[in-house]
Amino acid sequence: MYFCQNFSVMYRTHNCGELRLDDAGEKVTLSGWIQRSRDLGGMTFVDLRDRYGITQLVFNMDQDAALCQEARNLGREDVVRVEGIVRERSNKNKNLVTGDIEIEVQKIELLSKSALPPFTIEEETDGGDELRMKYRYLDLRREPLKKNLILRHRMAQEIRKYLDKEGFLEIETPALIRSTPEGARDFVVPSRLHKAQFYALPQSPQIFKQLLMIGGYDKYFQLAKCFRDEDLRADRQPEFTQVDCEMSFVEKEDVMRVFEGLIKYLLETIQGIHYKDEFPRMTYGEAMEKYGTDKPDIRFGMEIHDLTGEARGRGFRVFDTAGFIGGICVPGGAGYSRKQLDQLTDFVRRPQIGAGGMVYVKFLGDGSVKSSVDKFFDASDLMMWGERAGTCKGDLLLILSGEKQGTLFALSELRLEMGNRLDMRKEGVFAPLWVVDFPLLEWNEEEKRYQAMHHPFTSPLPEDLPLLKDHPEKVRANAYDLVINGVEIGGGSVRIHDTELQGRMLSLLGFTPEQAASQFGFLLEALRFGAPPHGGIALGFDRLVALFGGGESIRDYIAFPKNNAGRDMMADAPNFISQKQLNELHLRFRE
Amino acid sequence: MYFCQNFSVMYRTHNCGELRLDDAGEKVTLSGWIQRSRDLGGMTFVDLRDRYGITQLVFNMDQDAALCQEARNLGREDVVRVEGIVRERSNKNKNLVTGDIEIEVQKIELLSKSALPPFTIEEETDGGDELRMKYRYLDLRREPLKKNLILRHRMAQEIRKYLDKEGFLEIETPALIRSTPEGARDFVVPSRLHKAQFYALPQSPQIFKQLLMIGGYDKYFQLAKCFRDEDLRADRQPEFTQVDCEMSFVEKEDVMRVFEGLIKYLLETIQGIHYKDEFPRMTYGEAMEKYGTDKPDIRFGMEIHDLTGEARGRGFRVFDTAGFIGGICVPGGAGYSRKQLDQLTDFVRRPQIGAGGMVYVKFLGDGSVKSSVDKFFDASDLMMWGERAGTCKGDLLLILSGEKQGTLFALSELRLEMGNRLDMRKEGVFAPLWVVDFPLLEWNEEEKRYQAMHHPFTSPLPEDLPLLKDHPEKVRANAYDLVINGVEIGGGSVRIHDTELQGRMLSLLGFTPEQAASQFGFLLEALRFGAPPHGGIALGFDRLVALFGGGESIRDYIAFPKNNAGRDMMADAPNFISQKQLNELHLRFRE
Repeated sequence: MYFCQNFSVMYRTHNCGELRLDDAGEKVTLSGWIQRSRDLGGMTFVDLRDRYGITQLVFNMDQDAALCQEARNLGREDVVRVEGIVRERSNKNKNLVTGDIEIEVQKIELLSKSALPPFTIEEETDGGDELRMKYRYLDLRREPLKKNLILRHRMAQEIRKYLDKEGFLEIETPALIRSTPEGARDFVVPSRLHKAQFYALPQSPQIFKQLLMIGGYDKYFQLAKCFRDEDLRADRQPEFTQVDCEMSFVEKEDVMRVFEGLIKYLLETIQGIHYKDEFPRMTYGEAMEKYGTDKPDIRFGMEIHDLTGEARGRGFRVFDTAGFIGGICVPGGAGYSRKQLDQLTDFVRRPQIGAGGMVYVKFLGDGSVKSSVDKFFDASDLMMWGERAGTCKGDLLLILSGEKQGTLFALSELRLEMGNRLDMRKEGVFAPLWVVDFPLLEWNEEEKRYQAMHHPFTSPLPEDLPLLKDHPEKVRANAYDLVINGVEIGGGSVRIHDTELQGRMLSLLGFTPEQAASQFGFLLEALRFGAPPHGGIALGFDRLVALFGGGESIRDYIAFPKNNAGRDMMADAPNFISQKQLNELHLRFRE
Repeated sequence: MYFCQNFSVMYRTHNCGELRLDDAGEKVTLSGWIQRSRDLGGMTFVDLRDRYGITQLVFNMDQDAALCQEARNLGREDVVRVEGIVRERSNKNKNLVTGDIEIEVQKIELLSKSALPPFTIEEETDGGDELRMKYRYLDLRREPLKKNLILRHRMAQEIRKYLDKEGFLEIETPALIRSTPEGARDFVVPSRLHKAQFYALPQSPQIFKQLLMIGGYDKYFQLAKCFRDEDLRADRQPEFTQVDCEMSFVEKEDVMRVFEGLIKYLLETIQGIHYKDEFPRMTYGEAMEKYGTDKPDIRFGMEIHDLTGEARGRGFRVFDTAGFIGGICVPGGAGYSRKQLDQLTDFVRRPQIGAGGMVYVKFLGDGSVKSSVDKFFDASDLMMWGERAGTCKGDLLLILSGEKQGTLFALSELRLEMGNRLDMRKEGVFAPLWVVDFPLLEWNEEEKRYQAMHHPFTSPLPEDLPLLKDHPEKVRANAYDLVINGVEIGGGSVRIHDTELQGRMLSLLGFTPEQAASQFGFLLEALRFGAPPHGGIALGFDRLVALFGGGESIRDYIAFPKNNAGRDMMADAPNFISQKQLNELHLRFRE
């Protein structure tokens, strides 16, 4: 046995983001990547970059021509180690924290030569999406992605710190579990040891966290990797991370209090925002009626107003055949040009939004009104709509009509679009909202049965229990969604902790007792052995980080994301496996 | 919109572990499980349990007969909520932190009735392994498992705290990756969208963490879930958790310093042990020679001594045909009985150990020697062996012989067994050790090729590079294993950061350039774009926690483990999936 020997190399004494004027005169060693290099007559300036920043290196032809020549031979993204003396810069760069100093280099060592990168590694890059996904490790060198991943790290640490302090235990639940057909589609894993059998990857740790509650672990959390094999839409990933939590001996209010506290803590520590008020709450019904969505962005008003009563039955066929007519008031929009209004009509007619057309009413400064349906309605009608929608002189009323649910959706999208155009969705403003009193069930027309709006373990509101038998569609769930700036950050519920009620729920959802037993038997069994009242929540971590980072796409907050077809473009996964692997799994493919 | 309403129930004002004498007179609400109940004439005493402890409830027949009767109807594991007044106990229980008080109950509410549990939920249980796995949620209620999971939580938090403070970023790498046939067997996940293609679940984030280094994230860590589809041995799980780390611009010493620091930090914060010395180091060669294993338990000596030179060629056939003869000295063992020696012979002959037999020499107090090979060797021979092995009067020399590697292994097992018998492997003592200078390659006789002892990305020791061409078997790896108390806690290495050397390595391992490109192409490509020198380590988190907890099996430190056949006994996974699921994946089974 022996003890530590000396180091043979020392790659760096400092990183590229920490030297300041106070360090002038010190001898230092830095390592990093060549960001860029400039030759100015007898001098060569090189920006050396690492995770922490950029430091300027300087080489002087007069002092050491050979060394200066070495520096001139360096290319972008080469990795070097340099030794030198910290000097005050004559030409300071106020945009860099290290901009007061530079390193007068005495020795340079090439650690790793770089080929020419396929796109520029700068704040703004010239690389397209596909190319940047293929060379993700190069894209990750860019400042914007680096900032995102550091934010993600910071938020993960703070979330754990808060929950640990609140007495939560971080407990890992299994990744190889049993497939359950309820909900989205599972990814499955063929078992080699148990022929024709599969594990599934978890869509969430839902059942396991309920078992932990039954096991007596009254406060659980986990940053859990979850999986869903869905047809991919923009900005959805087959694997994603959830801040998954559960508590025992709680009601809805207890869970909401703890996680409202978590969001406030994150706003404080990450954003420096002191949000002291309680988060407002809105029922699902109110949200749908006023905002046309169950995840309203309440950074701005512009609520939807129901004009069905006022506008239907006056001979305008479009309105007369509509199940619902609704409008939003655009403040100061009376001056919108024909062209601007046409653009908005095109916007609502896009297939993703699906409105048939748009009616407008301008409330002009002189008290007159002007509308695309002047022919069908007189001024007093239009004024009455305006009154209903709370318009003032100078405002614009935009009206959509049709089948109720679709029209509310289109109005919601139009409202967000107008919010963007009028800059009412301010960056750096965070408007959290709890949405509550969701329906417990929704009718699945295709399968002619009810399905759970959240999941089959969600408890009904206690006061609605009597309705469960005869009016299940009227029963509200003891559930809550957390929405921030129009983004659904997470949701949760109080769970059913009673075997009998859980059985009734599964039967309502169309499970025969045999199906229920075969799929959820171990949970139903567990409920028999003293299950405490419990409830929880799951927050979408990728989305939460993207929201805090001000980004549009969660992909920019994941180190190695998949593309929209679920492919890892860099590693080229999924891919074919060997015949030997297939044989071991007893598998073949259907033609 | 509205704001928070009042709570309708309050399940508890305190938990079952926090009330003390100072709280006497206070009105409290508790919730928990009935641990046990005793009727003593007019009084009923009930132990109420939750995650935090046990509090005694008391009911008095004279004061409230109906309430007392309710209490008597409660069964084990029923969940209740009680209101009452904290009183000083007349008969204090010093074994409970709440033992000075009891709750004089005024109101009791049954929250959840429990069926009779299939085994007793006590410190020691009567449930067999299978039964406890099936009802894992009940087993998790037992104090020993609860302590283990709380320890795991605590260690995870402290590990992150330490690494965060050291500037590491926690970055999640993907779980759905590309299958690579090198190493253990992958679990694979059939893709629905890409027919006949598969993702693999990661055996470790090795390649991704190297790509993060190339991406400039110079200190990375993750508590990563990893997967290996191996034939299961006792105490091996198909999914396990790794503390996975990587650093750039480092040498071996830098990595060892940081992670030696981590272990010291954990010993300090979790065990209250201040380990101030440097961790000792041992070469692989020395470890094999002196301890017969690359993970020696150095809590005690009893090293192996090579007696081949002294004992071979004297006409004792067993020794004369042996490639290696080695012995260990058992201090004070000269008094071992025939029966004890037979037991040890049986021990080394077990198929898992595989020795043919055992020779002993007793060094008696009167200076004489007594041996099972008295017939073949005279006293001076035996004395010479004793001298070689450092025996004293009263000691026992145990000798095994045979093919070298197998004999060293058997001696290592015998040494550990003697350490146990002599209580030299003290609980609560932690003896860390770095094992270094492993061979880079080992010869795979079956496939007639070299394979990497660690993995194909491990760098050779710089000073051994010249040997790579002509004597690859002599090249040592720039690698290090961390061993504590004979348990391999983790290992790591400095990686190859040079495309050319990585190519040579893969070719040495028998990869054609095409195979190398098809399997590791994206890593080889990435190395071309300025890879910094880097290295890292991975610690087995399950094992580390088990070591700190003093447990034998990692299963006791995992909330929901699989059994030895890779099954989740509770959820009964893996299991069959529906024909619809199979069809969507284009899969069928071979007969």
